[in-house]
Amino acid sequence: MAKVRVHNLNISLDGFSAGDEVTFDKPIGEAGALFSRFDGRVIWGVQHIDDPIRADHVITSTWHQGIGVEIMGRRKFGPQTGPWPDDGWVGWWGEEPPFKTPVVVLTHHEREPIEFENGTVFHFVDAPAAEALDYAKSLADGDVRLGGGPTSVREFLQADLVDFLHLVTVPVVIGSGVSIWDGGADLQDRFDVETVTIGSGLTHQFWNRRSR
Amino acid sequence: MAKVRVHNLNISLDGFSAGDEVTFDKPIGEAGALFSRFDGRVIWGVQHIDDPIRADHVITSTWHQGIGVEIMGRRKFGPQTGPWPDDGWVGWWGEEPPFKTPVVVLTHHEREPIEFENGTVFHFVDAPAAEALDYAKSLADGDVRLGGGPTSVREFLQADLVDFLHLVTVPVVIGSGVSIWDGGADLQDRFDVETVTIGSGLTHQFWNRRSR
Repeated sequence: MAKVRVHNLNISLDGFSAGDEVTFDKPIGEAGALFSRFDGRVIWGVQHIDDPIRADHVITSTWHQGIGVEIMGRRKFGPQTGPWPDDGWVGWWGEEPPFKTPVVVLTHHEREPIEFENGTVFHFVDAPAAEALDYAKSLADGDVRLGGGPTSVREFLQADLVDFLHLVTVPVVIGSGVSIWDGGADLQDRFDVETVTIGSGLTHQFWNRRSR
Repeated sequence: MAKVRVHNLNISLDGFSAGDEVTFDKPIGEAGALFSRFDGRVIWGVQHIDDPIRADHVITSTWHQGIGVEIMGRRKFGPQTGPWPDDGWVGWWGEEPPFKTPVVVLTHHEREPIEFENGTVFHFVDAPAAEALDYAKSLADGDVRLGGGPTSVREFLQADLVDFLHLVTVPVVIGSGVSIWDGGADLQDRFDVETVTIGSGLTHQFWNRRSR
């Protein structure tokens, strides 16, 4: 049975996973400290680390395993709002997006897909969470990665569509921003949670949806 | 630079990774408790777990990442000793060995390779560690997994040919068996060690060879 999985979602000590505003210069707004504390995620495997292979690398390296398709919020694709401008924007990643699978971008402004040679295809879909998930599953076999940002993760959590979350608490304080927890009181009742602490200062949480 | 990596090597509280004798009925001798305590290793990725995906699964799932070739001791391939009998034996795994790459089997009795449709090819080589490693690297690009058992891991450690070890201390007592530590006094001086404890009772250690 295919799972909906969230991987490597960073959360500050005060609960934020992104800044309030995203610009071309600041893809995650004022929340850069979430990533500067540990930038060693090895989404395509531990062989991409020079030396050494540390526990945090091992634990963040499952991102790609068995994933057939990703769903992301519009702000993960770009900082634009409203109707898409004719600006040639193809995402933050240039000609080599790291996904290598179909990607469903949630937006109120649908447009034609954008396809890359490495297998990445962005599909722009205006749909609520459950419908977007059905569409994503129609594009590919395998598990579905819910790629963030926090607004879309929150929407899927509240619709009870998430099977697995890997959260990374980073020991930084952001002050303000976007949180997956807003409106999520008692969320923990639906999940079993396991916590692993690492000498680096990161805390990894694995949330698994209880049997329905 | 390609690494030599050991993954998911189980060690009992008294330091053993296999029993003293291996038979057709007991592939790891009297050390079965090492595996019954946690049998959830997901060597080809976390998507192969039904539910839930726990921390131990995540941490043991890097086994395949970027590996081009495996080296194993003869006892990992089969219980026979001396010249190979004409018994049709092709390894413990039948027609679907999990490796899917070339595998160098260390033996004093060389023989023709055995090839499987899934990409696994066993090569039988009589050579000391450094020479066997060169041969393995000539067969494929990528990192080299040193697959065990403990006797061959010990040989490579003593020859200082190991870059990364993921050891799993399992909370069981075996009483006797084979250990990677024999003759390895001061081994720790060559490595940086990180330890991660899990609620399951397993302790994961990541050993990284210091820069030479």
